[in-house]
Amino acid sequence: MSGEGDLIARLRGLATHPAARSLLDDAAVLPAPLGRDLVLTHDMLVAGVHFLPDCPAGDVAWKLLAVNLSDLAAKGATPIGVLMGYGLTGDTAWDAAFVDGLARALAHFDVPLLGGDTVAQPKGDARVLGLTAIGQALAGGAPDRRGAKPGDHLWVTGPIGDAGLGLRIALGEIEGPRRLLKAYRLPMPRLAFGRTIAPHVSAMADVSDGLLIDARRIADASGLAVTIDLATVPLSDEARTLGLAPLTAATAGDDYQLLFASSSAEIERIAAEQRVPIACVGRFDQGSGLTIVDNGGPVALPTSLGWEHGA
Amino acid sequence: MSGEGDLIARLRGLATHPAARSLLDDAAVLPAPLGRDLVLTHDMLVAGVHFLPDCPAGDVAWKLLAVNLSDLAAKGATPIGVLMGYGLTGDTAWDAAFVDGLARALAHFDVPLLGGDTVAQPKGDARVLGLTAIGQALAGGAPDRRGAKPGDHLWVTGPIGDAGLGLRIALGEIEGPRRLLKAYRLPMPRLAFGRTIAPHVSAMADVSDGLLIDARRIADASGLAVTIDLATVPLSDEARTLGLAPLTAATAGDDYQLLFASSSAEIERIAAEQRVPIACVGRFDQGSGLTIVDNGGPVALPTSLGWEHGA
Repeated sequence: MSGEGDLIARLRGLATHPAARSLLDDAAVLPAPLGRDLVLTHDMLVAGVHFLPDCPAGDVAWKLLAVNLSDLAAKGATPIGVLMGYGLTGDTAWDAAFVDGLARALAHFDVPLLGGDTVAQPKGDARVLGLTAIGQALAGGAPDRRGAKPGDHLWVTGPIGDAGLGLRIALGEIEGPRRLLKAYRLPMPRLAFGRTIAPHVSAMADVSDGLLIDARRIADASGLAVTIDLATVPLSDEARTLGLAPLTAATAGDDYQLLFASSSAEIERIAAEQRVPIACVGRFDQGSGLTIVDNGGPVALPTSLGWEHGA
Repeated sequence: MSGEGDLIARLRGLATHPAARSLLDDAAVLPAPLGRDLVLTHDMLVAGVHFLPDCPAGDVAWKLLAVNLSDLAAKGATPIGVLMGYGLTGDTAWDAAFVDGLARALAHFDVPLLGGDTVAQPKGDARVLGLTAIGQALAGGAPDRRGAKPGDHLWVTGPIGDAGLGLRIALGEIEGPRRLLKAYRLPMPRLAFGRTIAPHVSAMADVSDGLLIDARRIADASGLAVTIDLATVPLSDEARTLGLAPLTAATAGDDYQLLFASSSAEIERIAAEQRVPIACVGRFDQGSGLTIVDNGGPVALPTSLGWEHGA
């Protein structure tokens, strides 16, 4: 059990926010944000399912935090704290590297570790990690995935598809620049842009499972049809050099870009001010379902729109 | 994947609170409690570690919720919602029974399911479950584990040790009444009593790992010594009939009673009004460490004070 004791001691060292009560109490206690909505999300990662077994532990810690903060970003929220659930599998060197990476990630995003739990898993089992992120919405509330309106444009921050290429690099299937591997392992939730754009969108989500599937979820939730033009999907220069097809990019997951519906004329100005690359990739209309076109010409839907795993 | 689809469809059926956004959004969004502190906890259960593999799935669901609500009870908080992390291992009958039990437990405690995540674990791995509970504290704040004062009495709600006997019944080591098995499998967090007593305590925690170890944690966190008289540990009639020794009761976990430090004269009146059995089992003083006595006479500390697993 000394490995667990070490880990907890190191986590205590990270949990310096008063609300964490030094991880000595049953629960974290912090003031509720005055007059703001709370935004709450919980995402898990399983070794071999959501990250490759040889992924550096510190990068896994970053990703665990980043994927949850990306959900907050999609709601225009500012993180106020996280709780972590950590499965111990006996690899203490991995634990130590994970905590180092977690410390870096928490510092980068300036978000306090407030509490959580560590549990022993049987040896040989795939490690399970969970994280709950708590945020506060803007005074105007948090955009809903269900709010798209007929006539809204579909916008996405870019690039799209880099993480998918990074996964292929990590798997040894292709060679490519380190920046793409980083896009896969160390995604950067768009918290600042999410907050700025939130008042100007009618619906917003993050691209975690793939542009097509996440766009269709917005359309379904809003009771609308969505059409996406593949020619407008924003690819990075590195992706173009590697010959990434827009349809492949649009069905790859893990990009953690923001996808939103808006009819506001302000979108391009805000993105330019924040130097965030965005692209108008489609449009919502009365009806249902997803249609894809390429430069306006019809394209058959692929069998898989992305990573299907539910809520 | 249809097992997962079914599960998510059934969870959607439970997540009827508006804040859950029908589990169609990236995150749950709910108004922050006005002027109240938020109380946040995350506890996990691993099959074979925290529950026996043959424990009915519905009882596991109850326990997952109850152990987290017990942490809120110890802070005098009222639950406002939960997020669940659920590991899928391919046993769809278990999943279905779990959701039924979760529905009953959520209804019993009147707490909404707001969101969470479901993930596939490799077949054969021990199932991992996590739950985050969010509560709102009383206007006066949430008692801290670090607040005990010299001269405070140590009180505990009772009975203590029933869950430990229930575990032995579940393991087939002893025979005993069904109520004890229930005390182990279906613990009842003392939410109402926690709220009522909170303004009158200087420190409070729940008894999850054992009376002795949880009392010592309050003493350590408060920088004090604590003395416990085993003769005062409240045992149930069933436990007495089975010959449970007070020291065994005081080192058994899973009771989810409340343990608190107080010098208030109101304690016994409040407990009588609420018909909650309580006992004064010890006292805090200047110094450090745990001392146990039996009817005032010295007793050697046992090797294990309870279930040691960290935060």
